[in-house]
Amino acid sequence: MKFEINPIGTIFSLYKTKEECPIQGMAAPEGFGRVEVFPEYEEALESIETFSHIILFYVFDRAGEIKLSRPTFLDDRPHGIFASRHPCRPNGIGMSIVKLEKRMKNILEVSEIDVLDNTPLIDIKPYIPRFDHREEANNGWVEAKELREKPKNRE
Amino acid sequence: MKFEINPIGTIFSLYKTKEECPIQGMAAPEGFGRVEVFPEYEEALESIETFSHIILFYVFDRAGEIKLSRPTFLDDRPHGIFASRHPCRPNGIGMSIVKLEKRMKNILEVSEIDVLDNTPLIDIKPYIPRFDHREEANNGWVEAKELREKPKNRE
Repeated sequence: MKFEINPIGTIFSLYKTKEECPIQGMAAPEGFGRVEVFPEYEEALESIETFSHIILFYVFDRAGEIKLSRPTFLDDRPHGIFASRHPCRPNGIGMSIVKLEKRMKNILEVSEIDVLDNTPLIDIKPYIPRFDHREEANNGWVEAKELREKPKNRE
Repeated sequence: MKFEINPIGTIFSLYKTKEECPIQGMAAPEGFGRVEVFPEYEEALESIETFSHIILFYVFDRAGEIKLSRPTFLDDRPHGIFASRHPCRPNGIGMSIVKLEKRMKNILEVSEIDVLDNTPLIDIKPYIPRFDHREEANNGWVEAKELREKPKNRE
């Protein structure tokens, strides 16, 4: 059973290379970007400007080799890929919460982005704290990890 | 440009029909379910048990007609599909934050689930409040809406 995904737009950012791209959007609040939804989907954006934050779904189209377990940007010890946000994963779908600064027709200006320039966009959902906050949630193995520079030469 | 998605497991729940399925997982804290990751991906689950909450990504495989704007379960007024969590959308990918109760090898027992029984699972990412909370986020048009029974005969 296979499913087919077709891009609905393109994400543009200042990050041309993986090295430049921040580990998480909240770590780079400037991180301005532009989301161009294909004009035929403009109607699907109605009301989106009522939200301060949205969730972008996209394809990790430049991901390297898929491994089920590997060291991450935050930890030199390997973790299972489903216990990490690492881009090299089966079904390479990325998810980023970004701040919606402005909408002009089918163009969204966003900040707090951590996505490579020219990335295929496949879905947008509103970020809704009423549904998405889990006050009691822990940070798992990430809890003790400091944000750091991305280790060199690590996919 | 097309991308292909292959399931990595199956989500089982008590919800056999769309009518039974809650609007959001946080509205049905009991909502017990079982996530069976295919055995060949078991290694990818290493460390997942350190997280209290995980995010399931799946295919809305029984979604109805895709419309770019439509009334939602929470509002009789139509909204753009990218400004809503409605299942009938281009690239029907669902995202649910669930509570991880227990892991036994490749099987995850979860609660707070809002997914139909027998749904194809395509990815799991850890829910990480450090990255995913946006304290300043608003609820957009959803703010003023009360959770309610699903309107009858509405896809």
